[in-house]
Amino acid sequence: MNQNDLPAHLCIAGLGLIGGSLAAALKLTGFEGEISALVRSEKTGDRGLELGFIDRYSLQAEELIPTADMIMLAVPMLSLRDQLRMIRDHVSDAAVITDAGSVKQPFIEDARSVFGSLKQIVPGHPIAGRERTGVDAADANLFLQRRVLLTPVEETSKIAIAKVKSLWQVVGATVECMTPEHHDRVLAATSHLPHMMAFALVDTLATQQEVEEIFRYAAGGFRDFSRIASSDPVMWRDVCLTNKHALLESMQRMQLHTQALQDAIEAGDGDELEAIFNRAKQARDKYTIQ
Amino acid sequence: MNQNDLPAHLCIAGLGLIGGSLAAALKLTGFEGEISALVRSEKTGDRGLELGFIDRYSLQAEELIPTADMIMLAVPMLSLRDQLRMIRDHVSDAAVITDAGSVKQPFIEDARSVFGSLKQIVPGHPIAGRERTGVDAADANLFLQRRVLLTPVEETSKIAIAKVKSLWQVVGATVECMTPEHHDRVLAATSHLPHMMAFALVDTLATQQEVEEIFRYAAGGFRDFSRIASSDPVMWRDVCLTNKHALLESMQRMQLHTQALQDAIEAGDGDELEAIFNRAKQARDKYTIQ
Repeated sequence: MNQNDLPAHLCIAGLGLIGGSLAAALKLTGFEGEISALVRSEKTGDRGLELGFIDRYSLQAEELIPTADMIMLAVPMLSLRDQLRMIRDHVSDAAVITDAGSVKQPFIEDARSVFGSLKQIVPGHPIAGRERTGVDAADANLFLQRRVLLTPVEETSKIAIAKVKSLWQVVGATVECMTPEHHDRVLAATSHLPHMMAFALVDTLATQQEVEEIFRYAAGGFRDFSRIASSDPVMWRDVCLTNKHALLESMQRMQLHTQALQDAIEAGDGDELEAIFNRAKQARDKYTIQ
Repeated sequence: MNQNDLPAHLCIAGLGLIGGSLAAALKLTGFEGEISALVRSEKTGDRGLELGFIDRYSLQAEELIPTADMIMLAVPMLSLRDQLRMIRDHVSDAAVITDAGSVKQPFIEDARSVFGSLKQIVPGHPIAGRERTGVDAADANLFLQRRVLLTPVEETSKIAIAKVKSLWQVVGATVECMTPEHHDRVLAATSHLPHMMAFALVDTLATQQEVEEIFRYAAGGFRDFSRIASSDPVMWRDVCLTNKHALLESMQRMQLHTQALQDAIEAGDGDELEAIFNRAKQARDKYTIQ
């Protein structure tokens, strides 16, 4: 591993699934820099030390941020603005700031309002997750062969982008860049919409009379499907609040397709049903890695 | 294995995923009876012989049915009536007939209209499936630790029920009995509805502009979810046509919950969103085996 592009001191704000997994993955790959964690509770910090993920932690930004040459914000999206404010007065001019939020445009607005410019800020989003949350759910292999999308803006320093790219590559991820608008629209369809459907489906079944039985007889497909309904409620609340327009557009589109299916069932139109199912099967088989 | 309750000659009509897997599983467990297959093409029959799943096959019911003491109908649901007609004139009075269709009330109607009574007919449904179809997708372990639901009616012989139960238990399944109405309503919620949502979701994404990209950036949750959209289009067409009312009721219920979610997103109601997601997560974690 070439340590040149990697930070000598990486400070991770938030030691949950993403922050914890990143720290664990770096330690596993032999990362030589220091890893500190800016946390909100001593319990989390102590656990991070105990698991060997971090070298030290603090609840105070001023104790960690001044010496950090990279800061990873791995906190719930609606906390990002506060975090940015908290580090603003302590961060060195040479440091790179990045994040791991699921929606990029609001983070960019937050960063702009707090820092004025995104010169040293690289917005990022690792497409990786688990249903479990917290530092104990951390997994050093979480980012292996996963994609990380970076959405730098015009003023973002090329050197800063390269450094964040190196960090993610070291833990096994593939890094791609795109515009924040494009990111938020594509992710609304491919991640946020399926999660909404999974939440709505489980909610539908959970409120039916025969709920225990329904879950007992749930077939394999349902289990896979509903797994994502077990994801972190706060994170998904924040996704809904921050990617509202793209998500609503996706949901409306889905509603049209669901209605078409419902109409075909209502009409008993076997040919149309078979055509819809064939189209979905073909698209799924064509585009998805098995 | 106690061979007493098991047939000396089991004839499987339809050598697809379910029929093929049942034959393969029986052979694996050391089943001593004869397994024959009533198929529509020599290619399928030859492949079944080649794979060692069956002892012989025929395209003619009269060559197999008269000596069979159990007949398993493992054909698409809309072919069940024709199959029942085909075997009616050849089946022995002592033989047990069962099926593997996903919806039970229509099969019972078919059986009643062809046979007059369900005395020797045991409607059944193994809750097991794969996206792939055909005899080459067969898997001897498909039914291991899966549930098979039997929906006998009042006149169904207790001995016939016990025999079908033994057959499924031998290949590793757990067998339960319930009424056909109850079966169709519960399965509409737990299996048919999730499949419709998966088909509609993939259809939605497949018709969006950035389709290639959308599938490329699809996160793990989406892959799991969309896997079931790759299921057999003919089978699912038949499910829609035969379980229309229960399925439409489920879809309408789902639509109400989706709309509630959409309203909360539209209103930017973070508390309501978190409440919905928490409810879904709790139900999922409470009822689903990991």
